[in-house]
Amino acid sequence: MDFFDVVHARYSHKEHFLPDAVPLADLEKIAHAGLAAPNGANRQLVRLVILPDRAAIDPAAAIINHGGFNTAPAAIAILTTDDSPAEHISFEKEDYSAALENMLLAATAMGYAALWLDYPWIDAQNQRCVKEALGIPENYRLWATMPIGKPDGPGSRRQKMPPEARIFYRQYGAKG
Amino acid sequence: MDFFDVVHARYSHKEHFLPDAVPLADLEKIAHAGLAAPNGANRQLVRLVILPDRAAIDPAAAIINHGGFNTAPAAIAILTTDDSPAEHISFEKEDYSAALENMLLAATAMGYAALWLDYPWIDAQNQRCVKEALGIPENYRLWATMPIGKPDGPGSRRQKMPPEARIFYRQYGAKG
Repeated sequence: MDFFDVVHARYSHKEHFLPDAVPLADLEKIAHAGLAAPNGANRQLVRLVILPDRAAIDPAAAIINHGGFNTAPAAIAILTTDDSPAEHISFEKEDYSAALENMLLAATAMGYAALWLDYPWIDAQNQRCVKEALGIPENYRLWATMPIGKPDGPGSRRQKMPPEARIFYRQYGAKG
Repeated sequence: MDFFDVVHARYSHKEHFLPDAVPLADLEKIAHAGLAAPNGANRQLVRLVILPDRAAIDPAAAIINHGGFNTAPAAIAILTTDDSPAEHISFEKEDYSAALENMLLAATAMGYAALWLDYPWIDAQNQRCVKEALGIPENYRLWATMPIGKPDGPGSRRQKMPPEARIFYRQYGAKG
């Protein structure tokens, strides 16, 4: 699928998913796309946990009770650790965000819907519980889980400002 | 260009660029791809400033003296503001990172090289100077500048861990 078609077809699927399984090879192709994203100082701090079926997802999904995560046939969890924070500027948030965006686009390119599901994991108790559910070491942070699957409908799109209102030329505020 | 070819062709071009101009329509296509990225709570905080030639780039480039930014025939600056930080969780860093990754991929899809140039702008004095150079209001933060153009050579790639070392299955640490 052409790159620009993918970029403009991607949307945040917040509704339910159909139960159709996602082949493991597709999940691995999506994960590899994620790891091809740029990262700060080539430190490669991002790690991914593929959750290929409901048995793998359920213990994490039960913590937050989110409709999409409750019904997705597959998901990928994205985490980072910083092994020497005193010596480096932390780019963990940038790194995980670029990797996750690649994975959302990859899922779209393969005909799936997906979602960047981050806000429930900001809560400290949810964070502690999901790390326990997925066996994630203490020194890692789980940033987001990405439910993946065939959507159960077209999915809603939120209204966007026209791009022209957000793009300037030469100087902030100047129109082209 | 096929999506997966783009994802795996993208690299961080840290060397110089050829002086060949980048058509404004190409820069706008890249910017539109950036604004198609997901963003936290649909608040759409990202703004872009297209710098279409050296006259537009030079005042910003002089601040940090970076080889790629010094020679690129075009660039895009990416900024955000948070107009009501007390009421919201801030996703500015995630938002800008997803938008910038889309733009790096879009540039690659069109045969350009590009770079996520962020670290010099963390410095408070550089940040103050670049905001003055580009007319950026006080309440905005410039996160990165992205030099864009035809590379002056193949560009170096840094060594990556095998994806298999960073991908787990069902639980952290478990191999497929």
